[in-house]
Order: sequence, then structure tokens, then C-alpha cells
Amino acid sequence: MELSQICAPVQDDLVRVKERLVSISQVDFPWLEEQLGHVVKGMGKGIRPALTLLSGRFYHYDLTYLLPSAVSVELLHNATLVHDDAIDKAELRRGQPTINSLWGDEIAVLMGDYLFAKAGEFAADTQSPRVIKLFSQTLATISSGEISQFRGAFKLGQSREDYFRRIYAKTASLFSLATQSGAILSRAPEASVAVLKEYGDNLGIAFQIVDDILDFTSTEAAMGKPVGSDLAQGTLTLPAMLLLEHHPEDNPVRSLFETGDKKYVAQALTMVRNSSIIDECYQVASAYCDRACRNLNNLPPSPSLQALDDLAGYIVSRAV
Amino acid sequence: MELSQICAPVQDDLVRVKERLVSISQVDFPWLEEQLGHVVKGMGKGIRPALTLLSGRFYHYDLTYLLPSAVSVELLHNATLVHDDAIDKAELRRGQPTINSLWGDEIAVLMGDYLFAKAGEFAADTQSPRVIKLFSQTLATISSGEISQFRGAFKLGQSREDYFRRIYAKTASLFSLATQSGAILSRAPEASVAVLKEYGDNLGIAFQIVDDILDFTSTEAAMGKPVGSDLAQGTLTLPAMLLLEHHPEDNPVRSLFETGDKKYVAQALTMVRNSSIIDECYQVASAYCDRACRNLNNLPPSPSLQALDDLAGYIVSRAV
Repeated sequence: MELSQICAPVQDDLVRVKERLVSISQVDFPWLEEQLGHVVKGMGKGIRPALTLLSGRFYHYDLTYLLPSAVSVELLHNATLVHDDAIDKAELRRGQPTINSLWGDEIAVLMGDYLFAKAGEFAADTQSPRVIKLFSQTLATISSGEISQFRGAFKLGQSREDYFRRIYAKTASLFSLATQSGAILSRAPEASVAVLKEYGDNLGIAFQIVDDILDFTSTEAAMGKPVGSDLAQGTLTLPAMLLLEHHPEDNPVRSLFETGDKKYVAQALTMVRNSSIIDECYQVASAYCDRACRNLNNLPPSPSLQALDDLAGYIVSRAV
Repeated sequence: MELSQICAPVQDDLVRVKERLVSISQVDFPWLEEQLGHVVKGMGKGIRPALTLLSGRFYHYDLTYLLPSAVSVELLHNATLVHDDAIDKAELRRGQPTINSLWGDEIAVLMGDYLFAKAGEFAADTQSPRVIKLFSQTLATISSGEISQFRGAFKLGQSREDYFRRIYAKTASLFSLATQSGAILSRAPEASVAVLKEYGDNLGIAFQIVDDILDFTSTEAAMGKPVGSDLAQGTLTLPAMLLLEHHPEDNPVRSLFETGDKKYVAQALTMVRNSSIIDECYQVASAYCDRACRNLNNLPPSPSLQALDDLAGYIVSRAV
């Protein structure tokens, strides 16, 4: 099933989100317009704004507030990616050269700041101090998670708890923001806000686990960036953790982290691919998807219900 | 006159601003606590939060909203400094090693993001979507101004209009935010918001001109960072522009920008110091201070009135 089919209940409005995102790049400075245009063109499939709109369809679906919130969550996401790419010295993102590779790290830092600012402007347009505060808290969570990831690079001995805390901070917190803001802005009762928060929290964890799997199993052509990037940057993800558990001695992840020699990345990829680890990781991701959906039936009837359920299936089965 | 004397009408509340800023660094992660503690310890004299509180004393002086706004403006300011220092590869700020020099550029980028997030949380506590939007718009202005400065580095042929647009974006916009938010949160009528905006706009321009003068006339001991930093980074400030105008041929600024040879920095400093340029620049700054204060008498009586007037004098006469 395609994402656009799943999101049918809000598909027309996702087009309007995209239009607003494009309008960001229409500024008076020609060079800033070019750089912003590059960011907007490279944006992803829009899962996060879809989550906001779908979560907003159970009660008062008021686009006056939901649209800016959906735009803001996508801008916040892309702002963090621009900074992450500069920090990771990444060359490619979704098959396109990164801002840092085209214009340098300095411009990437400032462009990310500009996108944070634009995200803040759209968040302010929700007119909800609660939602606005959630946006800021989410950015605090994401950036402290990134600091934690950066400081933990090439360190063995991280626990699974560390891993889940880290991927909650870097990914799930934003999914949670997307669903919660949709619920709050549609004036959902608190019990429903909690159900949609639970959905976002767990879906985000599942999404990141799949991302971490794909970094082992996919191809550069499909991903638009090199496979094995996480290991190359010293980030210990679930497949690598399982490989360490399965082979505590003489392990390429251990050798990579101890020597920094990148030749061990390919070895680790091959070992993981030829093991049961990928299946095990998909089972963990599926369990989080189940947990995401377990209380959705407490929400009132809406075409969004099926969409959120399908989206969980899509997250686990996606190839990119 | 000391800044604390000038700010007497709000001095007790500035202590509470400082306490809230210190509380930012009390987090559960020991290393993040250390880094945040370093930022908080290195914060400046607090002119921006003073402007918010003083501007809020003409009508309903409600600290419930004014305090978080004052804290937010100081955090936003420091977040941009952390990123600027990383971009400029600056080693020192106010006599202390910069975040980037202590922990690297990557941590500086993420720490700046974290501080933006914290600024956003405090801005949300003002409960005013208008003020929150102003915060975001100001960050957009500052970051686009920084992009413009970075792209204009080592380029001759910039007009004075370019210079004033640039220093409005990088400095005056934040002064303007500080005064406007104080006015709005104290429920000032729009005419008074406009008077305090005019004050912030013009005071900010004057402040930056004096900053640009001090980079030529001060000492590293007084400034806590090397003199001539602006020129060394290729930033064309008012004193350098006047030097170019006075000596269109055979000019060290021109030689520096054309060759990149840093030996010309010292020559430019000496030439500016031994000329009438510094006086001319102070005259321009004083004119902006006069413009800042010209409509203050339209505000209702308040001890803040004298304080704002004195602050304008302090800005121009300050040594650091």
C-alpha cells in the first residue's frame, strides 16, 4: 500500500502542507531562496505532517490550527537533519547533496537555525501555548539526544535501555509531537490525547528501529545515502548490539569501535545480513507497532483510525 | 554610572532572571550540566533582559509573563553566540574559552540548538502567541543576517545601507524583541509598543556600532577576545568602511580583503586609531541613541523612563 493511499483521509490537506513548505523558500534574497529551495525539494514523504492531520481528524478538524502545526513539525524535522548532516559530515541525504556539502558547515548551521525559526513561526500560528511549548520541549529532547549520541560514538558497553532512550529522543519524540499536537488542536479530551501520544511514541520507536535495520540491509541506490553510515559514525544501533551479543568475542563491531578502521563496517554488514538478527529486529519493531495501535479503538469512529493502523504496517514493511 | 544603578527599578527582578538562567543548567546529565553551566557562567551583563523588564514597567508589570520573556531573550542571545563562535572558530568569549574550543564544533551546534529550545520553552510561558511569534521572527532575522554576513565576508563594495541592514538583523532585532515583548506583555497600548520598539531598534543599532568601534580601540584584556576580530573574519564594519572612504587607494582593509594576509589587520587598527574615524563613528552611534529616546516622553510616568534614557548614555560610553 502506498503512503498516499493510506493517508487518503487527509491527502488533499497534505498537498496544502506541501504548498506552505514551498512558500518558505520564496524570500527576497536570491541565494537564500536557492538554499531554502534545495531543502524544500529534498524533504521526505511527509509522514510527520500526515500524523498531525490524521490525529486531528477524530474531533474538531480545524485546518486553521492543524495546517501550521503540520508544517511546523516537518520544518523542525528538516532543521534537525540539516544540523545532523553537518555534524556527521554527510554528503548525501535522500539522494541529494547535503547543504553542508554544497555550501559548507557554516551555512548549514545558519540554515538549520533559520528553519528552526520558521518552525517556531508556524508553531506560534497554532495559537496554543501548550502546543508551542511541546514543540520547544521536543527540540530540547532531540538536541540532548543528539548530544548523547555524539558523546557515545565508538563506545561499547551501551545498554539496550540506552539505545531506546536515544531513539526516543532523536525520532520518537517528534512522532509524539506530531500526534499530540493534532489531538490537542482538534480539542480532543485528555484520554484521547494520551492514546495518540502512546501511538506516536511507539510508532516513532518502531520507525527508528526499521531505519536502523535498513542501514544494514538496504542499498545506497534505494536509501540515497551510503549503507553502514551508522556504524561508520560509531553509532551503536539494535542490529549492531545484537551482533555483539551473539558474538561477544572477535566481533567486527568491537574491532571497528576499538580501532576506528572502516574495513570492519562491510564485515559487520555481511555478518548481520547472514544471521537471524534482522528478523529479530523486525520482531521488536512489530511489537512497538502493536503497542502503538493497542488503544486506538478507544478513539471515536473516524476514517483516520484505519489510516493510523495501516500506517503502522507501512512503517514496518517500507523499503526506504 | 554602573549598569546595576541604571537598572535600579528592576534590579531585584534581574536577580530572579539570573536564578532562572542558572536553573537551566541543573539537568540530570552530568556532562550536559557541565556544558550548560559553562554557558550560563559566561553570560553577559544582561542588558537584554533589563530592557524587557524596564519596558514592562510602564503599564501592568506582571512578572508571571515578563520574567520568562526576559529569560528567553537572554537564552536566545546566547544560543546565537554559541553558534556564531563555532562558525567564526572563535577561541574566547568574554575571557572564557568558547564551547567549540572546549568540546568541538559538533557539541557547539547541538548546545546552541538546546538553548534555542529552552528559549522557546520560556517564550511559550509568556502565553502570548504574538510574543512567541516575535521570538521566532527575530531568530529568522538574526540567522538570515548571519548568512548575509558570512556570504559578504572579505567582499569590498558593501554600502552603508548593507551595513545598517546587517547590524539591524544581527543585533538590533533582538533589542527590539526585548523592548517590544516587555511592552506587549504589560498590555501597553499600541502607540506605546511602537515607542518602545523604536527605542529598541535604535538602541540596538547604536550598541552594535559601539561594539564595532571597540573591536578597533579596546584591548584583549578588556574585551575578553582578540581585538581586530571583525577584520580578521572579513567583516566590514563602520570604522573599516570609513577608512576605505578616507583612503580609497593603498588601504590596509583593501589589501587584507584582497590578499587575506592578516598582517594588514594591525595596520588597519593603527590607521583607524590615529584618525578622526572613531569620533565620527561615536557621533553616528550617539545620533541613534538620540533617536532611540526621542519619543520616550510619550510614555506614562515611570522610574523606567529615566533608566531607559540613562541606558542609552551607558551604551555609548561603555568600555566593554
